[in-house]
Amino acid sequence: MPDAAILDRLRAAVEAGFDAEVAFLSEIVRFPSRRGAEGPLQDHLARSFAARGYVVDRYTLADVPLEAHPKAAPMVGVDPAGSVQVVATRRGSDPAARSVILQGHVDVVPEGPAEMWTDPPFSGRVRDGWLYGRGAHDMKAGVAAMVFAMDAIRGAGLVPRGDVHLQTVTEEESTGNGALSTLLRGYRADACLIPEPTGGTITRAHTGTLWFRLRVTGVPVHVMMADRGTNAILSAMHLIRALQEHTVRLNEAAHHDPIYRAVANPIKFSPGIIRGGDWASSTPAWCEVDCRIGLLPGTEVADAMAAVERCIAEARAGDDFLANNPPQVTWHGFQADGYVLEPGSEAERVLAAAHQQVFGEAMGERLSTAVNDTRYYGRYFGMPGLCYGPRGEGAHGFDERTELDFLKRTTLSIAAFVADWCGVEEAT
Amino acid sequence: MPDAAILDRLRAAVEAGFDAEVAFLSEIVRFPSRRGAEGPLQDHLARSFAARGYVVDRYTLADVPLEAHPKAAPMVGVDPAGSVQVVATRRGSDPAARSVILQGHVDVVPEGPAEMWTDPPFSGRVRDGWLYGRGAHDMKAGVAAMVFAMDAIRGAGLVPRGDVHLQTVTEEESTGNGALSTLLRGYRADACLIPEPTGGTITRAHTGTLWFRLRVTGVPVHVMMADRGTNAILSAMHLIRALQEHTVRLNEAAHHDPIYRAVANPIKFSPGIIRGGDWASSTPAWCEVDCRIGLLPGTEVADAMAAVERCIAEARAGDDFLANNPPQVTWHGFQADGYVLEPGSEAERVLAAAHQQVFGEAMGERLSTAVNDTRYYGRYFGMPGLCYGPRGEGAHGFDERTELDFLKRTTLSIAAFVADWCGVEEAT
Repeated sequence: MPDAAILDRLRAAVEAGFDAEVAFLSEIVRFPSRRGAEGPLQDHLARSFAARGYVVDRYTLADVPLEAHPKAAPMVGVDPAGSVQVVATRRGSDPAARSVILQGHVDVVPEGPAEMWTDPPFSGRVRDGWLYGRGAHDMKAGVAAMVFAMDAIRGAGLVPRGDVHLQTVTEEESTGNGALSTLLRGYRADACLIPEPTGGTITRAHTGTLWFRLRVTGVPVHVMMADRGTNAILSAMHLIRALQEHTVRLNEAAHHDPIYRAVANPIKFSPGIIRGGDWASSTPAWCEVDCRIGLLPGTEVADAMAAVERCIAEARAGDDFLANNPPQVTWHGFQADGYVLEPGSEAERVLAAAHQQVFGEAMGERLSTAVNDTRYYGRYFGMPGLCYGPRGEGAHGFDERTELDFLKRTTLSIAAFVADWCGVEEAT
Repeated sequence: MPDAAILDRLRAAVEAGFDAEVAFLSEIVRFPSRRGAEGPLQDHLARSFAARGYVVDRYTLADVPLEAHPKAAPMVGVDPAGSVQVVATRRGSDPAARSVILQGHVDVVPEGPAEMWTDPPFSGRVRDGWLYGRGAHDMKAGVAAMVFAMDAIRGAGLVPRGDVHLQTVTEEESTGNGALSTLLRGYRADACLIPEPTGGTITRAHTGTLWFRLRVTGVPVHVMMADRGTNAILSAMHLIRALQEHTVRLNEAAHHDPIYRAVANPIKFSPGIIRGGDWASSTPAWCEVDCRIGLLPGTEVADAMAAVERCIAEARAGDDFLANNPPQVTWHGFQADGYVLEPGSEAERVLAAAHQQVFGEAMGERLSTAVNDTRYYGRYFGMPGLCYGPRGEGAHGFDERTELDFLKRTTLSIAAFVADWCGVEEAT
């Protein structure tokens, strides 16, 4: 734990920089960095990191041999060359000192109908101590926290002794390929902290996620003869019901999971997008449904995928049309493992101490039923993946927001963690 | 019935003109005259009618006070000023002779995915005695038949003694406002023949049709918290199931209908278009479903609409989310009555005689479970509405086609009907 004098200097620096941090966050929220459109924000961040004195590596997913890695996930309809990644490095004075990767994702999910928001979706507006906008909570507040934690160390007249990589990545909401690319490009450290909005808790475990697209096609006829044709929308509904029943069975089995038995229904299945047909008076010839389903950390991705395919194959038997016209299943995104952060790591101990110092209470833990990028660091590359960050509301919903006072304390907590983990020395 | 000599002259003229008729049909099939895009085809037809010597009235739905008529239906998302109608008139020598309206619609329903067609959807190609393409069967073949029936009369050296209006209209597939507009513009006759592709049968009755759009909206959340949010796609599925059950009850009641008890399940309900959500890992905030449901000729449109709204209101009670967030119902198209062609009219007798002469067998009859435009003439404006025309396959489906030999005979049958109904005299 950093000594009290250093913590006081960091606290004063976070305080002094907080107006700038809020302005920084508001500005990056105003970039509509939906999937495939993160480039302008990444350019902005790259320039901002360069101006701070970092060595900046800006590259795209087309520059990295993703397809050669077994944990890369398919990107359907998105150009890897348009998916920009940024790694900003500050090398410390001591190559042997402990290093850290601080990583945040800048991709945001679609904002939905603007009329369901109180303010415009990408306003970045501050009201009553909260900052609003798509991505404000998930997870641009975390990006601001990690950037300004580093600024605070510098503002306190200190520099980390170990190396620090500030990484802003894409694809967290769809594949995870952005995080994987940084590892394939060679970046390593003794720990990785991802300030997803956990409300000041450490993420003990997260479930995995699969994405798949169902496509049902059939021969439409005039509605007059609907008995003879098939209706692709109704057949898609039949498959959705079968997958709901599959999910009930998975959640029954989860009662025996060593970790997730603590969570009611940890496996979430959801049809997220549906589109089908083109005329009210034609029986629809096709229907596509984009789905998402979870898996427990102890389940192999391949097994979970096979179970989904088996469920769909069995459901076909209950539908006259599907029985003769197999629905297509396209795995078009996440093929993500779950991950358990094993308790007892030194990195977690240092973070917990920093949290205790700043918040005056023990760091809680949570079990997440959605993925985050720590799995790459913790599960495949052997470095503790700490998922810990600010507090907010409305992820993937409307009126998404982050709480600014909590953000300030989180910024200090991360600064204290980095100072203690990497060590600090007086800036010269 | 025209005497045998006249029939022979008409037969020879239809035969002589049939290559031109097939070329005409192929050409009009190549116009992709989807809803709102019929203008270029209507211009082509207007020019073609003018070249034949008709007096041509070309106007749009914006030129007619549709909204003042109780049987006009709402047009959502379509500009009336872009919906072009054509009435081509040939006045006969005797204002007291029987007059006729020959009407066809030129709007076609969307063709769906091109890859599900053997030929390109608007090819107009002829293979093995069939002509292919969206609209070839429903109902551009009928348009060709009525145009070339009139050409055959002229080609036989004859002219009708009564007035003839050749009408090509739009909106038959969505509202019926095109047909209504010709009546509001003042066109009348002693009978109306609409050569929809009935395979040489007379349509004794058709059911009505309602269109409505369901919109379910809710507050989405990250799938991680799917238990707390709502899923608009699943709530839309709940409403579709309720409407299926409503339809079962309507079809049970139809067992007692004086006409439609002869048809199994005459009331067709179909969700034709669905769209909802924008991200696989967000629980969807909205889902829209465009639906179509039928009604019996003896049912009032207002009652059928109220029954749908009641069904949806009752279904809300079974869905936690919908109970607090009423789904919106928009009546966005058809509010069409059914229609019964009362047997015994002189017009039908003349048509039946012409059919018998040409086909060598009695004209059959059919009960349709979808609307056509005859209701305007027969139900609201007191003139017999005869729905009788060529034979084909694939209405609202793929590889739509019309049978050319049948088309030739239908052309002759219509020519014989007009000659007998209006009377003919030698052209001078």
